[in-house]
Amino acid sequence: MNRKPTLAVVGATGAVGEVLLQMLSQHADVWGEIRLIASPRTAGHKLSVRGEDVEVLPLSEEALEGAQVALFAVPDAVAAQWAPIAAAKGVVVVDSSGVFRMDADVPLVVPEVNPHAVRLRPRGIVASPQCTTLAMIVAVGALHAEFGLRELVVSTYQAASGEGRAGVETLRRQTELVAGTKLGTNPGDVRRAVGDDTGPFPGPVVLNVVPWAGEAGDDGWSSDELRLRGEARKILDLPDVRVSATCVRVPVVTGHSLSVHAAFENEVTVARAHEILATAPGVVLFDNPAAGDFPTPADVVGTDPAWVGRVRRSLDDPCALDLFLCADNLRKGAALNAAQIAEAVAAELTAP
Amino acid sequence: MNRKPTLAVVGATGAVGEVLLQMLSQHADVWGEIRLIASPRTAGHKLSVRGEDVEVLPLSEEALEGAQVALFAVPDAVAAQWAPIAAAKGVVVVDSSGVFRMDADVPLVVPEVNPHAVRLRPRGIVASPQCTTLAMIVAVGALHAEFGLRELVVSTYQAASGEGRAGVETLRRQTELVAGTKLGTNPGDVRRAVGDDTGPFPGPVVLNVVPWAGEAGDDGWSSDELRLRGEARKILDLPDVRVSATCVRVPVVTGHSLSVHAAFENEVTVARAHEILATAPGVVLFDNPAAGDFPTPADVVGTDPAWVGRVRRSLDDPCALDLFLCADNLRKGAALNAAQIAEAVAAELTAP
Repeated sequence: MNRKPTLAVVGATGAVGEVLLQMLSQHADVWGEIRLIASPRTAGHKLSVRGEDVEVLPLSEEALEGAQVALFAVPDAVAAQWAPIAAAKGVVVVDSSGVFRMDADVPLVVPEVNPHAVRLRPRGIVASPQCTTLAMIVAVGALHAEFGLRELVVSTYQAASGEGRAGVETLRRQTELVAGTKLGTNPGDVRRAVGDDTGPFPGPVVLNVVPWAGEAGDDGWSSDELRLRGEARKILDLPDVRVSATCVRVPVVTGHSLSVHAAFENEVTVARAHEILATAPGVVLFDNPAAGDFPTPADVVGTDPAWVGRVRRSLDDPCALDLFLCADNLRKGAALNAAQIAEAVAAELTAP
Repeated sequence: MNRKPTLAVVGATGAVGEVLLQMLSQHADVWGEIRLIASPRTAGHKLSVRGEDVEVLPLSEEALEGAQVALFAVPDAVAAQWAPIAAAKGVVVVDSSGVFRMDADVPLVVPEVNPHAVRLRPRGIVASPQCTTLAMIVAVGALHAEFGLRELVVSTYQAASGEGRAGVETLRRQTELVAGTKLGTNPGDVRRAVGDDTGPFPGPVVLNVVPWAGEAGDDGWSSDELRLRGEARKILDLPDVRVSATCVRVPVVTGHSLSVHAAFENEVTVARAHEILATAPGVVLFDNPAAGDFPTPADVVGTDPAWVGRVRRSLDDPCALDLFLCADNLRKGAALNAAQIAEAVAAELTAP
C-alpha cells in the first residue's frame, strides 16, 4: 500500500484527544483521512483537525471500517471492548489505556527507547505507557544504554490532568474556594472548605499533596506504582531490574514531575550523564541551579520533550544518580507518544 | 537548683516563635519566668503566653541575663552571632538554625531517638534538626532500631511555611492570582501571571512544584538535601549510612511530606513495621489506603506527631520499605522538637 493510511482517533473529544488533534494538525502530514470517533454522548460535535472541521462519529464497528490505524484515547473499559474489535477488522490499534500494556502479545513502545518493538504485534495492538513512565523513561533509557540500570527509586509529583478533565476542574474549583483565605494551618480546614466532593481524587488536591494515584493493588501498592515498575521493566527489556515507586498527586494542572534515584552497574559521572542527556532525542537537559535552571511543570507544560535537571551523583555510591524530570502528561505522557507510535506504523504500512 | 528555670524565647515574633508560645502555654508548666525576645524591629509588641501578655524585649546581652535556657528560633546569621554570647553567659542554648547542627561539639537531638545526646554539650549549645529531617527521623529511627538502616532515598514535598511568613504570604498571593483562571496549560503562563516576585522561592510555587530548597551546595546538591543527609547520619549515629535526598517545594501552606525508600540490613515485613510504627512515641501510623487512610499535609497540619502511611515492602528487595510521611514543619518540624529539648534540659537542671 502506498496511499496515505486512514487514521481513526477514538476518544477524540477527551483531554488527550484534544491534544492529539493539535499534534495531528502540526506534525508532517502522514495521514490520508483522519476520522474522529467518540462516545455517543459527544458524537455529532465538530472538531478542527488540520484546519478542517470534522464531525465526530459515534463509536461503532461501522465507524472503524476501512481505517488502517486507530489511536485509542479512551477509558480502560472502552479500550478493553473495542480495541480487539478494531484489530479483528485489520486496524492496527495504538492504545493509551492500561488494559494491554502488560500483555505479552502486545508491545509497549516508546519510539526513542524500543522502536523495534512496534513491528511485532501478534494481537494487532500496540500499547503506549502511562504518563508517569513516559515522563522518565526516555532519559532513563538513554542513561541505561551507557551505564546499565540496576535499580530505580521513583517519587512522583503528578498533575491533576492525569485524571482528565474532571481532575482539572476539581483543582480549579478547589483553588477558587481557598483563594483569599487563611486556610492550610489547622487540621482538616482545607478538607472542610472543599467539602466532600474531591472529584476523582481521594482527598483535597488544593494546598495539599495526596499520596495515592490509581486503584488499590496488592500489598498496599497503587496501580500507578505497580504500572510504573512493570512498564519500565518491559520497555527497557530488564525483567528483573529493581523498581520502587511512590505516586503522589500535587496541585498542578498539567505536567508530571518525578524524582528519580537510579543506580547503575557502572560508575557514573555528572559530566558524562549531562553529555548523554543533552544529546538524547526527546530529552531537554536543563540543569544549572545557580542560574535557576531546573525543570518545573509550570514551565514545561505545553512542550513535547521530557525535561531533566538536578543531575547529581550520589555522595555515597559512585554508581548512582539523582535526577528531577518534568514532562507534559498530555503530550509526551500520552498524545505525543501515541502519535509517534502511529506514525511509525504508518511508515511501515506505506513502505514500498 | 530546684527553682523552675527561666526561659528566654529568642525570635518570639516569627512563624516558629508563634507556635512555640502556643506550646509553652499548653505544655506542663516547667518554666519559671518566660522572657520573650526578638529583633528591635518587632520588640515592644505584647504577646500572649500562658494566658498573660508579655512585652517583647529587643535582643541584647541584658535581655539574656539570668536565663537558664534560651530557645533560639531566628535566622542563621542571628543565631551565629548570639548563641555563643548567650552560652558564654551560662545560658543553655537550644538552637533551631542551621549554624551549629553539624558542629562536632554540638549535639543534634531528637528526644524520641537520641535523648542521651542532650547531656553532652561542650559549647553550651544543643541543636534541633531541620524540618525535613524531623518529619521522618522519628519513624526511621524506630525502624532502624529493629532492622538496621543501610540506605535512605528521600524525596520531599515541602510546604511554603518552611520559608517562614514570607513563604506563606507568597503562596497565598499567588493563589489569588491564579484562582478563577485557566492557567497551567501553556508554557510559562503561571510564571507570567505571578510576575517576577516569587518571594523566597526560585520560581512560582502555586500550580507548580519547585525542585530546590535552600542554598547551592557542592556538586549540584542543595543545602536542604545535604543537611538531611548529614543530620540523619548524626542523629542515628550512622556516619556511613547512604542517604540521597531530593528536596522539592510544593503549594502547601504548612506540613512537610516525604517519600522515603529505606533499605535495611535485615529482612522486613509490613506487619512488623506496622507494629513498630504503631507503638513508637511521636509517630502516628495511618495506613489503610482502601479506607482512604494515608497522611496528607492538609490533614496533619496543626498536630504534633509525625504521621506515616503507605508502608510497603519492596517487591524486589525483602530488606527495603517504602513509606510516606507527613509532619507539621512548624511543630515537630521546629517548635515542638526545640521545646522538647528545652524541657529535657530543664529536667536536668532542676534534678535534685
